[in-house]
Amino acid sequence: MTKRAAGPKKESASEVRNIKITLEYDGGSFFGFQKQGSHPTIQAALENAMSRLFNREMKIKAASGRTDTGVHALGQVVNFYCVSPLALWKIQAALNALLPEAVAVVDIEEEAADFHARYSAKSKIYEYRIWNSPFRAPLRGKMAWHVSDPLDLTEMRRGMKFFLGKHDFKAFAAADPAKKRPQDTVRNILALDLKTSDKLLRMRVQADGFLYHMVRNIAGTLAEIGLGKKKASDIPQILRSKDRGKAGRMAPACGLILAEVLY
Amino acid sequence: MTKRAAGPKKESASEVRNIKITLEYDGGSFFGFQKQGSHPTIQAALENAMSRLFNREMKIKAASGRTDTGVHALGQVVNFYCVSPLALWKIQAALNALLPEAVAVVDIEEEAADFHARYSAKSKIYEYRIWNSPFRAPLRGKMAWHVSDPLDLTEMRRGMKFFLGKHDFKAFAAADPAKKRPQDTVRNILALDLKTSDKLLRMRVQADGFLYHMVRNIAGTLAEIGLGKKKASDIPQILRSKDRGKAGRMAPACGLILAEVLY
Repeated sequence: MTKRAAGPKKESASEVRNIKITLEYDGGSFFGFQKQGSHPTIQAALENAMSRLFNREMKIKAASGRTDTGVHALGQVVNFYCVSPLALWKIQAALNALLPEAVAVVDIEEEAADFHARYSAKSKIYEYRIWNSPFRAPLRGKMAWHVSDPLDLTEMRRGMKFFLGKHDFKAFAAADPAKKRPQDTVRNILALDLKTSDKLLRMRVQADGFLYHMVRNIAGTLAEIGLGKKKASDIPQILRSKDRGKAGRMAPACGLILAEVLY
Repeated sequence: MTKRAAGPKKESASEVRNIKITLEYDGGSFFGFQKQGSHPTIQAALENAMSRLFNREMKIKAASGRTDTGVHALGQVVNFYCVSPLALWKIQAALNALLPEAVAVVDIEEEAADFHARYSAKSKIYEYRIWNSPFRAPLRGKMAWHVSDPLDLTEMRRGMKFFLGKHDFKAFAAADPAKKRPQDTVRNILALDLKTSDKLLRMRVQADGFLYHMVRNIAGTLAEIGLGKKKASDIPQILRSKDRGKAGRMAPACGLILAEVLY
């Protein structure tokens, strides 16, 4: 065994750094964020790149949340600990060189020791996209759910208002396979809006947290309101029912994007 | 054999109709527009869908032009003759149901007998996209060429002006494998502009016609100007040289979109 000299340089190199990275990814070719055996997932791709870069087995500490198969991200946040003294921009460039084309580190920062990508998050913003046209559009409607029949946007916007604020969203949540105990299903929706350009609708929703499938169930319910199958004024009683069967169908994963995590 | 009664309905059904369709496609998974043996191409996918719909072997009459492997289209125009009395909206819906996800008929019209998708075109508009950031962006930079080093947009715009109008574009053209005789290489660029949003640059160019690889060679040359490897004021002498070796490198196919064909 080689004796290692103690010294300021050595000390700084072995100090544990808490690295926060922001990821953009096209979820189309992954089985979601979370590692799952030998399936290609974002976490597996990232930990593989990290392990190659640091030449040792590396794991992330946390992600802001999991994203399902096919769900995209513009701003997924992950943190990990490392002892390497490598400059941040070099870590970013190296990870980008080692990651598959569909994943990229778009931002990197060093955080205080107690920063945790999931527990430190104050709120998250998701975007749900709908391409509303009789015909699909392979470019303009990429990463959007194709809804052929015309949607009544006024009625959808009227419905959106009922979701704002603190509610029990049990009627809009799937049973979360990762949570064993009954969950607290109260969440606070801080903002919810719908923008359109051409036939592309972009619904953005910001909340202090999201239940499993909550955004997709809200999007699916709003689409049913837009199609006249449900009324905007049905929302309060759906919320009160706490019954998943009362809400609309879940919208597909392809239209969902984790836009931003706020700390 | 059943005797068929002659009458106005029968006559109208056997009249040859000239159908113009507008296609949007993601070129990423095709070997270009033109049929090529058993490779997946847009033309093969379209003729296959047409043949299934009309239950006989169908071929297109013409396309506004070929697009290369990996090149996308928002408004590729194709015409074909058919004798079916099927309503246009039904032809469109049926073709969309039979086409692969990455191709869609976004518009359909019936034209006069002499309409020809290529010869009747007055001008075409191409868009070339560049994602200009040190880091790739799997969503925001989709369908764009990733250029890491910062581009000087002012100098690029200065260079663009020299392309406007009628010039011999021989220096910006590859030898066209489909043309056997020496070509007339004079073309008229009617409009050329560069728009930016975030780090995405969108160069649009309208001309009465384009030589093989002309847009990609112009985009590649403008990028070299933006990077300081060439000067905007070099353009006139590159044009005059008629020497492909004097212009910049060809930009990759992934950033090119056939935006519109004007008749």
